Amino acid sequence: MSHNSFGHLFRFTTWGESHGPALGAVVDGCPPGLALSEDVIQPFLDKRRPGTSRFTTQRQEADRVRILSGVFEGRTTGTPISLMIENTDQRSKDYSEVAAAYRPGHADYAYDAKYGFRDYRGGGRSSARETAARVAAGAVARLVIPEVRIRAWVEAIGGDAIDPANFDDSQIDANPFFCPDAAAAVRWEAMIDAARKAGSSLGAVIACEATGVPAGWGAPLYAKLDAELAAAAMSINAVKGVEIGDGFAAATLSGEANADAMRPGEDGPEFLANHAGGIAGGISTGQPVRLRVAFKPTSSILTPVPTITRDGDATDIRTKGRHDPCVGIRGAPVVEAMMALVLADQKLRHRAQCG
Amino acid sequence: MSHNSFGHLFRFTTWGESHGPALGAVVDGCPPGLALSEDVIQPFLDKRRPGTSRFTTQRQEADRVRILSGVFEGRTTGTPISLMIENTDQRSKDYSEVAAAYRPGHADYAYDAKYGFRDYRGGGRSSARETAARVAAGAVARLVIPEVRIRAWVEAIGGDAIDPANFDDSQIDANPFFCPDAAAAVRWEAMIDAARKAGSSLGAVIACEATGVPAGWGAPLYAKLDAELAAAAMSINAVKGVEIGDGFAAATLSGEANADAMRPGEDGPEFLANHAGGIAGGISTGQPVRLRVAFKPTSSILTPVPTITRDGDATDIRTKGRHDPCVGIRGAPVVEAMMALVLADQKLRHRAQCG
Amino acid sequence: MSHNSFGHLFRFTTWGESHGPALGAVVDGCPPGLALSEDVIQPFLDKRRPGTSRFTTQRQEADRVRILSGVFEGRTTGTPISLMIENTDQRSKDYSEVAAAYRPGHADYAYDAKYGFRDYRGGGRSSARETAARVAAGAVARLVIPEVRIRAWVEAIGGDAIDPANFDDSQIDANPFFCPDAAAAVRWEAMIDAARKAGSSLGAVIACEATGVPAGWGAPLYAKLDAELAAAAMSINAVKGVEIGDGFAAATLSGEANADAMRPGEDGPEFLANHAGGIAGGISTGQPVRLRVAFKPTSSILTPVPTITRDGDATDIRTKGRHDPCVGIRGAPVVEAMMALVLADQKLRHRAQCG
Amino acid sequence: MSHNSFGHLFRFTTWGESHGPALGAVVDGCPPGLALSEDVIQPFLDKRRPGTSRFTTQRQEADRVRILSGVFEGRTTGTPISLMIENTDQRSKDYSEVAAAYRPGHADYAYDAKYGFRDYRGGGRSSARETAARVAAGAVARLVIPEVRIRAWVEAIGGDAIDPANFDDSQIDANPFFCPDAAAAVRWEAMIDAARKAGSSLGAVIACEATGVPAGWGAPLYAKLDAELAAAAMSINAVKGVEIGDGFAAATLSGEANADAMRPGEDGPEFLANHAGGIAGGISTGQPVRLRVAFKPTSSILTPVPTITRDGDATDIRTKGRHDPCVGIRGAPVVEAMMALVLADQKLRHRAQCG
Repeated sequence: MSHNSFGHLFRFTTWGESHGPALGAVVDGCPPGLALSEDVIQPFLDKRRPGTSRFTTQRQEADRVRILSGVFEGRTTGTPISLMIENTDQRSKDYSEVAAAYRPGHADYAYDAKYGFRDYRGGGRSSARETAARVAAGAVARLVIPEVRIRAWVEAIGGDAIDPANFDDSQIDANPFFCPDAAAAVRWEAMIDAARKAGSSLGAVIACEATGVPAGWGAPLYAKLDAELAAAAMSINAVKGVEIGDGFAAATLSGEANADAMRPGEDGPEFLANHAGGIAGGISTGQPVRLRVAFKPTSSILTPVPTITRDGDATDIRTKGRHDPCVGIRGAPVVEAMMALVLADQKLRHRAQCG
Repeated sequence: MSHNSFGHLFRFTTWGESHGPALGAVVDGCPPGLALSEDVIQPFLDKRRPGTSRFTTQRQEADRVRILSGVFEGRTTGTPISLMIENTDQRSKDYSEVAAAYRPGHADYAYDAKYGFRDYRGGGRSSARETAARVAAGAVARLVIPEVRIRAWVEAIGGDAIDPANFDDSQIDANPFFCPDAAAAVRWEAMIDAARKAGSSLGAVIACEATGVPAGWGAPLYAKLDAELAAAAMSINAVKGVEIGDGFAAATLSGEANADAMRPGEDGPEFLANHAGGIAGGISTGQPVRLRVAFKPTSSILTPVPTITRDGDATDIRTKGRHDPCVGIRGAPVVEAMMALVLADQKLRHRAQCG
Repeated sequence: MSHNSFGHLFRFTTWGESHGPALGAVVDGCPPGLALSEDVIQPFLDKRRPGTSRFTTQRQEADRVRILSGVFEGRTTGTPISLMIENTDQRSKDYSEVAAAYRPGHADYAYDAKYGFRDYRGGGRSSARETAARVAAGAVARLVIPEVRIRAWVEAIGGDAIDPANFDDSQIDANPFFCPDAAAAVRWEAMIDAARKAGSSLGAVIACEATGVPAGWGAPLYAKLDAELAAAAMSINAVKGVEIGDGFAAATLSGEANADAMRPGEDGPEFLANHAGGIAGGISTGQPVRLRVAFKPTSSILTPVPTITRDGDATDIRTKGRHDPCVGIRGAPVVEAMMALVLADQKLRHRAQCG
Repeated sequence: MSHNSFGHLFRFTTWGESHGPALGAVVDGCPPGLALSEDVIQPFLDKRRPGTSRFTTQRQEADRVRILSGVFEGRTTGTPISLMIENTDQRSKDYSEVAAAYRPGHADYAYDAKYGFRDYRGGGRSSARETAARVAAGAVARLVIPEVRIRAWVEAIGGDAIDPANFDDSQIDANPFFCPDAAAAVRWEAMIDAARKAGSSLGAVIACEATGVPAGWGAPLYAKLDAELAAAAMSINAVKGVEIGDGFAAATLSGEANADAMRPGEDGPEFLANHAGGIAGGISTGQPVRLRVAFKPTSSILTPVPTITRDGDATDIRTKGRHDPCVGIRGAPVVEAMMALVLADQKLRHRAQCG
């Protein structure tokens, strides 16, 4: 058991704080012989990188990854892969206010309650900055599952959802919102600008789909593919809900309406629907694996919120500084990474037991 | 790593199939000295037991638990607690149809794809009957967290939700639906009767609340309390969605509307709202821990559904036999058990690191 | 983490006390499709079974194993295999003396110090009776590694070693001592008879060899094949030392004398020596894997030994009852089982990462 | 499961190769609030550091540790502690010979057999250089167990053992051999000089004792204190044997001679002997915990040894370059570190279950 590790056979451990010298991940269990260099990882980090548009935090981080071990002559050796990203923009701001009082919605109070004190600079370990390490590890995981294509997008911001009829895969990387609906992207731009100017924030829903997953991945009962995806998604900062397939909507359906009927296909069964999100009994069915994730609005807002100090006195706190007005947007590459990490791990486990 | 185990320090491993001679759980890591006997466990099993009303499957199981180890002179010894429940009503029905073809929505096809063959009798290992072992283990977990009160109820059936204004805790055990709204219970009775007679089925939403959880439980980052609750819930048969606190609704809120403001209270902070469901940064805040779980409708329906045979030919299948018209109802005691199991484990982990 | 589990991908969890109703093991992660029935397991249990000669404890146990799950139509299904052995000869003796005072060399004092109290009947959980569950699990493990032949024997009793020149594989099962040297077996018979009559006891050294292990099994660095064998052996009751290959003798050699030179062979390298015991860098080399294990003399002796009571008073204790005069003898099948369990697990792990 | 991690609650993961840019460890699960800085760790690294006398490898490494996370304002925060040591002396030698042929006794052939290729520079991941990361992690572990004093020494080199009558604790750090017997140190100096000049090597036995361990640490059955010490020791490069207490000598004793009798003492029992090495039933008894570890002679020798090339052809190989003539000597601080790491982990586990 390691609290800061995830996965079993393809396993990664992350370390680092928002304002420490660096953060990183150690990936253990990676198969040998895979072509890996910094250039393979960097594009994924660049998608998550802050400061690339006015719609994300203005913190400037190059997020350059270094591979410190586990690769020889351009290939993975089967030994631990140490990935490090230096922090370069730890602005030397005044932390006295956040050191003294708890920001509601943040982990401040909970960390103090658990550990007795906390690294209050930029949220310390509880900062979403840690997700850079996941994205780097996720890029390695993708090498393990070349048969799988993973795609995440933003499905709704502040309750304003895309129109499925407008879904255009090519749009996802064409706007700063990972939005597959060009019309929605226009609306969201205005919404986020308004929120940013008001010092407010918005929640978001991310959808993620993995195609090419063969039938049979997943390890019932307590390492079910859907259970691990749920844990993976819920471990991301600000996530409050997870759905597989139809999710909560399935609870409103009749058994007839929810049935994923089958008929003979070219290679195995062809499914006539995918209410289940590609998973039955915790095992992939060969259909696309579908995950939806709810991100709460960024807790850092300029409106003063009543809170208490470490000494227990009443005060109000406004969270100044650089923040994402909608933290869910940059969550999309993180959800993709977690999907890759779960699938890589499950593939190896399947091979071990049933290979 | 053990696929059929859950938890780290308070850990249980389940075994058994729907139509095997027995099923059970081995609970490992339980603190010594706790008063335990079969009588402590049985009431929880009785809540989940099938055949107690016409609204659940008519399979008759006494679900009598036996403790085979780990208890001496009425107290836990700190060694593994082996719990066994014999299967008594494995009706010798004809399984030739389900052996030959895949029931859509069930794990039949996925198990065959993974393992090459399957125990098709009553769903084998993928049967919800396995959850009896969880409920038994959960009863032991409750002994570890006497400061916590856990309560689950059905919040909606087939899309028909309770009225929060009608919430009455004392109603939950007063009807066969774990329904806290007496008026809703009347409606649900009619709905389920109709579904049962039509050979149809309904989905459900279960809510679960744990009060008395002190601030500080949870192990960031990859064993966050919410991540483990999500995995625990998603590992239950038929579950497709999980929410902590406001869940997906939080994604529609502004940062201001979602803030859980604090003010000084008698013992630590008093919170003015609980959008977060009692968890921040993966750690409990001292507020009630709130979980919502979506159950899909029972996949076993009398309406024929197109499917394929093991040989890949087209056919239709109707699932005859004894089934819950709404499997989510009996999910309530299972969700409670999983909540207890996660919290007991997290308590021990917190004590280890911070105790 | 589960204290009573061993292995990672091929993993077993044991439960049960010496004088409880039963003991057992849950085997998780076993590949599907392997032919398994009670008849496959029973012969291994029979080798370890007490009461078969006057040289072992006179406790009479049939040690009949039952398979309660994980097997369907004679083959493993990939789901947990629950194995149970009922205790039949829990003689209702008077335990008041052992309940009140600590037997030196036994776990009595340590269990009380750890857990606050203990199941004192026959040693409770710390009884070597638990090893029956390991042997049962080990029989399943052997199915996973059909390419491997495992053989353990007794190499020395009470300091009297076999003569390697007399080694005769066919002798091992021809005497009650798993002794490959017919002459030594004659001497040991006299020694053990004398010890038994005097109420004394003797230590033993067990050797175990696995042939057919291909090169490449083992998971460096902290799951090295030799490290796992060492943990496996040291977890057996009464074991105090473990050697791989030449073991402590290697520490007296020069680098030249210890070198396992290689030359080209039919299939891969041919080794000119095996000082290393078939493992380099924690990974198998294709040579026979060689393990030696030291068992201390049975702690239960008739000579009174000074000790203290639970209340801290001085007393003397003699351990009456039924005991093995040389517990190491029945250790041989247990060492074999642990070797099989480690190798099966490592094979699956190798397949996962490098398969 | 993580192959490059060790421990459960106090857990560390190491990474890095002999000739990569750096190596390191991530320590997870450390309690918060402990005073930690590089200065706390460095002295332990300095004891293991190469190049400090002519009796060790002449590779020059400063072995300066950097703490990259998990410490704030001089105290551990409870989050992962990332420790990094840069490699500075990766001499750009010609590796063509070792790349082409397998060095007997090294992991070369086994790594190729497992992974298909290997980082051959200085042994890559299988180099004893990795143990620097263990020593750094071990220094953190010591903070968790301030009640324990751990001491390792060299007990024999090349079969020449210390005289117990000459044991002088103050001598251990007074010579380059961690030798507690001044007379033996003089003999060993000559032996190692001779071996070094001849390009030969010598094995060694390390003893390690932990005093102050309270009764009750250890987690039966498969995480017994002695089993974990055995795994920890056997995971160190070149180790071939492990003993707890009397070890193999116990196998030659009678039950009477091996009994650790007790009588009432000031605080709990007083033991009249410690054949068991302070562990009974896998749990500490309060006596000193005693471990002995056998190191084989360094496999790198100047005498040509027959071997094969990667292509399977016969050749001879001499291992030139910088090597420890007796690798066991620098094993002493590593054994100490592993003792500390096991005990810290067991302490936290004991507190979790029984605290």
